Amino acid sequence: MQFSLELISKIEKAIQNHQFDVIEQHFDQINDADIAKLLSDLSLSEQVTLVEHLPNAAYILEFLSLDQQLKIAEHLPKQNLIQVLSQMHSDDQTDLFKYLPYSLQQSIYTELSPEIQQQIQHLAKYPEESAGAIMSSDYVAVSPELNITQAIEQIRKIAKNRETVYLIYVVDPDHKLLGVASLREMILADPNQNITDVMRTDLIMGDVNEDQESIAEKLHYYDFIALPIVDQQQRLVGIVTYDDAMDIATEEATEDFLKSSAVTSSPKMSIKTAPIHYLYKKRVFWLVILVFGSLLSGFGIAHFEDIIAKNIVLVFFLPLLVGSGGNAGSQSATLMVRALATGDVHLKDWLYLIGRESLVGLCLGGTMAIAVSILGYFRGDAMVALVLALSMMGIVLMGCLIGMSLPFILNRLKLDPASASAPLVTSICDATGVIVYLCIASIIL
Amino acid sequence: MQFSLELISKIEKAIQNHQFDVIEQHFDQINDADIAKLLSDLSLSEQVTLVEHLPNAAYILEFLSLDQQLKIAEHLPKQNLIQVLSQMHSDDQTDLFKYLPYSLQQSIYTELSPEIQQQIQHLAKYPEESAGAIMSSDYVAVSPELNITQAIEQIRKIAKNRETVYLIYVVDPDHKLLGVASLREMILADPNQNITDVMRTDLIMGDVNEDQESIAEKLHYYDFIALPIVDQQQRLVGIVTYDDAMDIATEEATEDFLKSSAVTSSPKMSIKTAPIHYLYKKRVFWLVILVFGSLLSGFGIAHFEDIIAKNIVLVFFLPLLVGSGGNAGSQSATLMVRALATGDVHLKDWLYLIGRESLVGLCLGGTMAIAVSILGYFRGDAMVALVLALSMMGIVLMGCLIGMSLPFILNRLKLDPASASAPLVTSICDATGVIVYLCIASIIL
Repeated sequence: MQFSLELISKIEKAIQNHQFDVIEQHFDQINDADIAKLLSDLSLSEQVTLVEHLPNAAYILEFLSLDQQLKIAEHLPKQNLIQVLSQMHSDDQTDLFKYLPYSLQQSIYTELSPEIQQQIQHLAKYPEESAGAIMSSDYVAVSPELNITQAIEQIRKIAKNRETVYLIYVVDPDHKLLGVASLREMILADPNQNITDVMRTDLIMGDVNEDQESIAEKLHYYDFIALPIVDQQQRLVGIVTYDDAMDIATEEATEDFLKSSAVTSSPKMSIKTAPIHYLYKKRVFWLVILVFGSLLSGFGIAHFEDIIAKNIVLVFFLPLLVGSGGNAGSQSATLMVRALATGDVHLKDWLYLIGRESLVGLCLGGTMAIAVSILGYFRGDAMVALVLALSMMGIVLMGCLIGMSLPFILNRLKLDPASASAPLVTSICDATGVIVYLCIASIIL
Repeated sequence: MQFSLELISKIEKAIQNHQFDVIEQHFDQINDADIAKLLSDLSLSEQVTLVEHLPNAAYILEFLSLDQQLKIAEHLPKQNLIQVLSQMHSDDQTDLFKYLPYSLQQSIYTELSPEIQQQIQHLAKYPEESAGAIMSSDYVAVSPELNITQAIEQIRKIAKNRETVYLIYVVDPDHKLLGVASLREMILADPNQNITDVMRTDLIMGDVNEDQESIAEKLHYYDFIALPIVDQQQRLVGIVTYDDAMDIATEEATEDFLKSSAVTSSPKMSIKTAPIHYLYKKRVFWLVILVFGSLLSGFGIAHFEDIIAKNIVLVFFLPLLVGSGGNAGSQSATLMVRALATGDVHLKDWLYLIGRESLVGLCLGGTMAIAVSILGYFRGDAMVALVLALSMMGIVLMGCLIGMSLPFILNRLKLDPASASAPLVTSICDATGVIVYLCIASIIL
């Protein structure tokens, strides 16, 4: 939704005049997510004033980025901050609290309700990117004795601040998960039936220490609205909802995407707001590492200085040959990294894929060899054309095989296959390309 | 879920002996998504036999890839295929039907129920990747006169084959969308209230011709379970659900990922099963285009042949300098492409980002310049070290600026910024790198 400048200036005027009833009237017909967008267009002091005076500010804040939430939170009067924080869903609440400045944490903690204190303690202890760190404790759990009417009655009582009421978790007195009933099945069933009659017991769950990527994959594969998270004793400790899965998938794609061009991954970094030294740090590591690859190419060239000096036309074609190998290799590596990430291929498919890739590489190399040998014939002679054709064939084929194998090898070594970045593959292919080209040249010419 | 080999062989034996009651007993405690996984491990003939005899085969098939669905469908007896197809949700149904061989389509079409015929006609007419092509017509719509008890009664009647019953769409007699009520709000409200009292009228909708990527973004941003899709007259024609949004987001990420290393995008292609000539076609286009970039580098080198011949040590450092520029440029381009894709930056941020990137580029270039000049001093002399330091500084900075600008320029020209692939950026940076390096060398040496 796009807002008219007129509406925005109306809201700004109302803030100046403290006419919050006018604002509430406007906002009554706007979705919280859109109000959050509108909020982003205001100045920080206007944002703070608005959050102070809006009754449902907590739910609007949840749609802002954590950075924005923190800026507003730090400028809110203490009592407002406590109120807003108390209203937020437990996962967003914990995230916001965790990143507040230490002094502010100290000053508000004791004024939060004991339940919220306990919740924050509980959720903040899990490592980043684990199911525990992203789960919410705002689920609906009922005991197995209830019938459907009683269960719905209980849902009505506690529904207000729950992430979802569409999946109801049935737990025993120890909070062990017994089954999951959907509200859909409950309203379809006879209201006098017991909840255990409609619940599913073929439970798909996440472990509290499981990686968030695997949690998101489960939600995605099973098309669930929420996934229950249990501890080692099978006790229900939280849920992760479909919208979290979407956020995680985007984060993980960004991480792989950045790795693909040798930027150390940091999915939450914004290139717009991250400090310069931080961006520098994320990029310099691989740039320096890749120097060694280039040095290898340099040594290759140095070794064949004589043949180059005798046939200076060879230098003209060097970037073309070497570059094509690198490009073909990057293509192979990216195809493979993505296929491994989406589950399209597995480690066991390696040999089969190498076979296919050899065929593709031969076709690509053949095409490129024809093109380059025509160029070579006109710029040099038939022998140069032959050197170029053979080299191109070999270099492209090797590029493809290196590009395809590297992600597999990394995966095998329990490293992230996404580290087989285009620059890394290019740099390895460049070095082998130089050697293949100049070896063939020194044999034939 | 992983299945024991024991279970799989039990199922296979039961299929051979046609003991389908045994299989149903086993499957009763397994989620449909997991049965689909198990199905994938069986031979095609076993799959076909099983689908013939399982009562809820349609819902299991929906979890398989379209390729797998098609293979099974083509081998099913005609009556079974009609039955399975009739039970599927409308979006999967249309997809499967659309891709069946033409003769099979002809032979079953008239035997489908008139409603299904109409539905397929209706859904199949929308272009690929539009909201219309991915939406489902299995939503719950009610008229505005109902009270909540009556509305829930109606939901109970039609819920069986609906994608979701958690969002109920209120429509007028022309099927114009008036509002959306959530089942959550309905069970919290007084059952005698009118449905119009609990429905929201600040509607967020998708247009039937809207691009699927934009539909997925809306679902993601608003955290909706489903997004209503309307036609030009605001009539409700379908819904897209959160699980579709997840599929689309994965597809779109794959598309950008492949583009990032110059593979023509085709998110649904599997490198495991796609024909060789298809993979070849997807890759050869850019490989050939990139030849021209490399030729530029070649011409650059040819132009400076004299200075190279006089200072052969320059060739040793050529791959290092040129490569570093390309690597830094790839990093910048990828950061920018991803930031544009996730909405982190916009066209208007260009100047600001160029400023920041210049700083990052100077820092990176500075670091690399120090490293390379030390190498240069030991392999050449102080003057060579100076040439290398200045060149590295200039090349890395230019790489960063080219990498950052290219996606912006493409975006400005209404082209996909993701086409600013690492190989393309590398090839442009290589050519400029060669020229910068050898110009500086010919001035100083």
